[in-house]
Amino acid sequence: MKNSIKVFAPATVANVVCGFDVLGFAVNEPGDEVEMRFTDTQGVVIKRITGDDGRLPLDAAKNTVSASVQHYLKHINRLDVGVEIELHKKMPIGSGLGSSSASTVAGLFAINKLMGDLLTPTELVPFAMKGEELACGYGHADNVAPALLGGFVLIRSYEPLDVISLPTPVGMYAAIVYPEVDVPTKDARQMIRSKVALKDAVTQWGNVAGLVSGLFMNDFDLIGRSMKDVLVEPTRSILIPGFEEMRKLAMDNGAIGFGISGSGPSVFALTKDEETAKIITKAQQQHLHKININSKAFVSPVNAEGPKIM
Amino acid sequence: MKNSIKVFAPATVANVVCGFDVLGFAVNEPGDEVEMRFTDTQGVVIKRITGDDGRLPLDAAKNTVSASVQHYLKHINRLDVGVEIELHKKMPIGSGLGSSSASTVAGLFAINKLMGDLLTPTELVPFAMKGEELACGYGHADNVAPALLGGFVLIRSYEPLDVISLPTPVGMYAAIVYPEVDVPTKDARQMIRSKVALKDAVTQWGNVAGLVSGLFMNDFDLIGRSMKDVLVEPTRSILIPGFEEMRKLAMDNGAIGFGISGSGPSVFALTKDEETAKIITKAQQQHLHKININSKAFVSPVNAEGPKIM
Repeated sequence: MKNSIKVFAPATVANVVCGFDVLGFAVNEPGDEVEMRFTDTQGVVIKRITGDDGRLPLDAAKNTVSASVQHYLKHINRLDVGVEIELHKKMPIGSGLGSSSASTVAGLFAINKLMGDLLTPTELVPFAMKGEELACGYGHADNVAPALLGGFVLIRSYEPLDVISLPTPVGMYAAIVYPEVDVPTKDARQMIRSKVALKDAVTQWGNVAGLVSGLFMNDFDLIGRSMKDVLVEPTRSILIPGFEEMRKLAMDNGAIGFGISGSGPSVFALTKDEETAKIITKAQQQHLHKININSKAFVSPVNAEGPKIM
Repeated sequence: MKNSIKVFAPATVANVVCGFDVLGFAVNEPGDEVEMRFTDTQGVVIKRITGDDGRLPLDAAKNTVSASVQHYLKHINRLDVGVEIELHKKMPIGSGLGSSSASTVAGLFAINKLMGDLLTPTELVPFAMKGEELACGYGHADNVAPALLGGFVLIRSYEPLDVISLPTPVGMYAAIVYPEVDVPTKDARQMIRSKVALKDAVTQWGNVAGLVSGLFMNDFDLIGRSMKDVLVEPTRSILIPGFEEMRKLAMDNGAIGFGISGSGPSVFALTKDEETAKIITKAQQQHLHKININSKAFVSPVNAEGPKIM
């Protein structure tokens, strides 16, 4: 058995426009890194966090990484184990790219490897959801499941939890832009109406079914036609500066589809190749610069493998 | 060019439990038959209808078959053509099995063949929807599209119309029971609330995505897990005598899943083989008999080909 490990876990795009709370996919970058090693002292401690500008708690009970590792150790009945964690944030916090999820998943993947792969990635999902609950008050799975499994993932059901890996279309890229404004996940959720018109719900599940079909059929055009959100985007996009212009720039430059990543403020486009993704993020960042918004861009293939040992 | 033709078009199960207004599949039987021949007199006439107990209009403007054929001829700019139609109803009217759809589709398939296959089955869908509008006041496509295309069909979008053929799982059977009570489609639609909880809508589109994934993966268990309807079934099932008992009989006897066909009162189960389907319909019919409800049963493979020339 290894004594220490270093793991990378990917950022993720939840919802994928039409699949609110049920769909997500992972990207190759950005992502977070966790170093973990056994210690002689019982219990889980956060030794160090880098790249967070002091925003994340070092208290092991409050930090999502240590807290979910603790849940895992309790589940496998090994609370006797001593573990020390270093978390290296390599992606922006509060960006809508599954930042807490990437950290949590890296930690869980690491401890599971150190303990000898006792659980499958799918079996780790509930523990990662505990981390999400701590981070944003709501134990959703549409970031942690794709971060753990890689590629596109469907959360068919939450009770009982039923997670389905979907095919990752060959050659697909994600063009992500993070406008550096603050949209806390909790606020973004509260903006959503609790009642929706059945007519809109039908439109939405037609599109969810279309997107899933497109993934299985490797049909980029069908995927694009299905990336429409009549329920959540109209409200949430208000919080994102330059949203409609960024959509136009994405679609005019050949995106398959465009929308909000998770609860925002990051936006993403899916593209057929890297070149298109780069053109889109460049144009969108130029627009944001013009309206005095700082931004970060990430161009990456859709991730097919989930976390990896570094 | 042929002068006359006889066509069979299949019954269909709309909604498939979770996919209200967007999913449907066809069965090999029952279905309706249309005989059609060219005449020397301009215009479309209904010459004869059998098997309808006099319930369907002979007036060409009011009958869904002739009216949709008329739409078709207008579209291809051939209103000069004279056509005479015999409709043989071989399935119960108002049963929730796409009775009007089977007739309409048989007629459209027939005229399109007679005119030399000018349109594809998918291109015929809008004309068949005109027939549905006439028959039940609402131009839905979740019966006519699977009747035209065969197998499982997704209507991703109505505006614009976007119809996607889904894979038909190998060896899958449908066990259909029609309790002979009256549930007009219009009434069944009016029972449905126009506003739904977002939470329920999320549950529903998770299941729609799961069902579609199960069809692509040929995963009968996933298909079954996804056949849940938290929105429409709780209300509509009240109109169907013995519904919960029929569900229990289906599931206890090995059904993949069970639910209402379209707006009811027919119910259906999907099964892994013919034998299971027969056991289920027999048990359900016995139960209906016990509560003094007459019924008809149909056991059939899921239809993969759509209408056929007889």
